[in-house]
Amino acid sequence: MSTPEQRLADLGIVLPEPLKPVANFIPFVQTGNLLFISGQVAAGPDGRIAGRLGEDMDLDGGYTAAHYCGINLIAQCKSALGDLSRIARVVKLGGFVNAAPDFADIPKVINGCSDLMVDVFADAGRHARVAVGAASVPGGVAVEVDGVFEIGGN
Amino acid sequence: MSTPEQRLADLGIVLPEPLKPVANFIPFVQTGNLLFISGQVAAGPDGRIAGRLGEDMDLDGGYTAAHYCGINLIAQCKSALGDLSRIARVVKLGGFVNAAPDFADIPKVINGCSDLMVDVFADAGRHARVAVGAASVPGGVAVEVDGVFEIGGN
Amino acid sequence: MSTPEQRLADLGIVLPEPLKPVANFIPFVQTGNLLFISGQVAAGPDGRIAGRLGEDMDLDGGYTAAHYCGINLIAQCKSALGDLSRIARVVKLGGFVNAAPDFADIPKVINGCSDLMVDVFADAGRHARVAVGAASVPGGVAVEVDGVFEIGGN
Repeated sequence: MSTPEQRLADLGIVLPEPLKPVANFIPFVQTGNLLFISGQVAAGPDGRIAGRLGEDMDLDGGYTAAHYCGINLIAQCKSALGDLSRIARVVKLGGFVNAAPDFADIPKVINGCSDLMVDVFADAGRHARVAVGAASVPGGVAVEVDGVFEIGGN
Repeated sequence: MSTPEQRLADLGIVLPEPLKPVANFIPFVQTGNLLFISGQVAAGPDGRIAGRLGEDMDLDGGYTAAHYCGINLIAQCKSALGDLSRIARVVKLGGFVNAAPDFADIPKVINGCSDLMVDVFADAGRHARVAVGAASVPGGVAVEVDGVFEIGGN
Repeated sequence: MSTPEQRLADLGIVLPEPLKPVANFIPFVQTGNLLFISGQVAAGPDGRIAGRLGEDMDLDGGYTAAHYCGINLIAQCKSALGDLSRIARVVKLGGFVNAAPDFADIPKVINGCSDLMVDVFADAGRHARVAVGAASVPGGVAVEVDGVFEIGGN
């Protein structure tokens, strides 16, 4: 069975340096066997992905933005744990979409992050989720996603 | 002492088939003795309850929408645990109201869900909560609520 | 080493009576060694701090509003635990800013709460965080913040 790291490689994904918080907080906190990861904004190799769904960004753009939030979440997990196989379960994602009031396809945007979790963590990537439109998102990016992960025994 | 199932019957509430996620995630994840339930949208016997508070839906409508979010949360608990008496505590609800910027009565809307939790789970239904207005909610529904529940020993 | 209570005194902060929920829920729930605190609105000695960032409130005003959310979170911790030294870790804050759609400085607002946590709890105050703009916030206040805290062994 392949590891999450191998699946990332198969997908051609190179984890970036984890984003540094732009404020007086930290990227993750472990309590017991739960790992709380701070909200990760949509940023890829070319920098922040700004935009508002239903206004100046289409669904494909939003999906891609959420995909990069997922990569940044996984980069934080890697930074926290060293070995992604230590993730026993993706427990919960909170997805916030920079969206115009009449944009209702929030779930299809956040799927860009959810799909990645299952691609990388397989069954352990299947998670609970909440997803809503936000009036604004830090830095004007299109999507922000935070997460709760369960750490396994070894 | 009556069970949550009996209190649901007393209230004339028949739990629906749990809503299926419209995306690549799942309705609930258990980690340790915590059950994380995905955001449940306002949907009742007649389908989704669309609307925006402060625009085309009044407070009574919003309260009812939140009530149905609560029913859908409880339906997921039932699906997860079989027996609602296994819920030791409703720990936390996150309520998101599809709201116009000048609509400030967010708490009175989410009370439709909070009141139901206490009606059904009695003292174990008293919970912590966060409630805010969202720029948009999946499918244009009026309310979405997610939850964290504690599972008891037996 | 000083206690959180001493650091509050050094900062000239007198904890208020904890805010009472305006609805059928409670200010905090403990499950295991996690303390979930309900969303605390911006309210200080002169009452609720209303406003919308990017519209009728500037960054300094927003920072101060978030600071008072933090004071109210700490007041709930004190009410729950008696002794703030029992807080082993501030695990996670969720910050919601009443913001116009073009207001992107969400993190700088919520820093008002994050900075206070580190001022009061020192290293144990360093937390994970999610922060977004909300379409509306209860009572029209400028900021609402909820939190998850880890309770220590003694």
